[in-house]
Amino acid sequence: MEFDQVKIVMVNTSHSGNIGSAARAMKTMGFNNLVLVAPKTFPSDEANTMSAGASDVLDSAVVVASLEEAVADCALVVGASARSRSLPWPLVNPREMAHQVLSVPSDAKVAIVVGRERSGLTNEELACCHCHVHIPSNPDYSSLNVASAVQVLTYELAMSQVNLEQADKPNFGVEWDQKPATSGQLESLFDHWQKTLVDIDFLDPNNPRTLMSKLRRLILRAHPDEVEANILRGMLSQVDKTIRKS
Amino acid sequence: MEFDQVKIVMVNTSHSGNIGSAARAMKTMGFNNLVLVAPKTFPSDEANTMSAGASDVLDSAVVVASLEEAVADCALVVGASARSRSLPWPLVNPREMAHQVLSVPSDAKVAIVVGRERSGLTNEELACCHCHVHIPSNPDYSSLNVASAVQVLTYELAMSQVNLEQADKPNFGVEWDQKPATSGQLESLFDHWQKTLVDIDFLDPNNPRTLMSKLRRLILRAHPDEVEANILRGMLSQVDKTIRKS
Repeated sequence: MEFDQVKIVMVNTSHSGNIGSAARAMKTMGFNNLVLVAPKTFPSDEANTMSAGASDVLDSAVVVASLEEAVADCALVVGASARSRSLPWPLVNPREMAHQVLSVPSDAKVAIVVGRERSGLTNEELACCHCHVHIPSNPDYSSLNVASAVQVLTYELAMSQVNLEQADKPNFGVEWDQKPATSGQLESLFDHWQKTLVDIDFLDPNNPRTLMSKLRRLILRAHPDEVEANILRGMLSQVDKTIRKS
Repeated sequence: MEFDQVKIVMVNTSHSGNIGSAARAMKTMGFNNLVLVAPKTFPSDEANTMSAGASDVLDSAVVVASLEEAVADCALVVGASARSRSLPWPLVNPREMAHQVLSVPSDAKVAIVVGRERSGLTNEELACCHCHVHIPSNPDYSSLNVASAVQVLTYELAMSQVNLEQADKPNFGVEWDQKPATSGQLESLFDHWQKTLVDIDFLDPNNPRTLMSKLRRLILRAHPDEVEANILRGMLSQVDKTIRKS
């Protein structure tokens, strides 16, 4: 997926602030193409204020009169929808939507369509869509703000790229600044640790119980790096030195 | 994960509206426990307005003086963070965060901590966290609103439950109102279709090319239900009837 393939289409938005918040949400996730179908007010100061630095998205927004016009050039049209409709339609969650968008050829356009603040999209508008996307929500309170919906949907699209990119990254979970300690370094640490614990009468070599196992499990779980292992070694050496003096 | 295990902690929030928007975002995703660390103003009319029906979350919000106090009873503390910090810390994306939360015992509490609008969490606050969560964002514009961050993080937590629940659902992609057509029904349809196409001289039985294959591929891709298959059969029968008259 190229981020430029995707346009966000907002239908009949009533509150200008939501247009600005949606522009901000889109831009944080890397999307810049906004189409407004018959917005109540646009452009507006409130939209600019709420866009908080994403005013370029508002400046390049396209205003059209109908949804048909907005999606005419799109090979995939996905409409945001609440779950229950009189005529069921292919319904995906946002993650499944992102998978569908990934399968669209790179020279085709995709529209993600969100409806009015109170009433969403009409049945006629939903029938213009290849599939509907429902954001799973609290059955007792599903009142998702329209800009929040744009945030979640564009987040899922962006995450689908992150997952592809991270597939060939190591699974260490963080971009670390130090090399991980080797097993050899950690074994030296544990040997040293055990010796010191015996020296300070914390560990009885004739009845060691599971003390060292528990320490090993704790330390190994944390995947220490070389500097951290050295810090622990240094602490033990300092303990050794102090008890020799006493 | 039980939704009640999780608390959302907002640190030093400046804009009351963001507290209300965050309460709304949390509640749409099924989360009700909000802790405010030294908010600039709380309670406030603006927070109530922006909460849009989630005022119960605001009413039950707990105000404390420090992050330590907010997370004292938590077995897992996750702090929202931008990527680059002087001291790297275990860093996960929101989806990985949700996996971590799933692994917490069901009687333990979890805190998801978001920082100030402009400056996020301090290094001291981040050092109170077991891990940091970074929402992947546009490198040129990562200005995610704090309530939008709460929306994305609670969405991922809610989605982790959806995936568990959907694991034993059929993969038909939609809660359909009709039974899917059987292969037998579809084969009868294709036989009928082919016969009709020959009758109207659209298909040359001596040179059929790939016409029927293309029709089959189109229809099968759509996974027709019984009613849809019957509609197509009915259309063909009507064509047959009409051409017999002419």
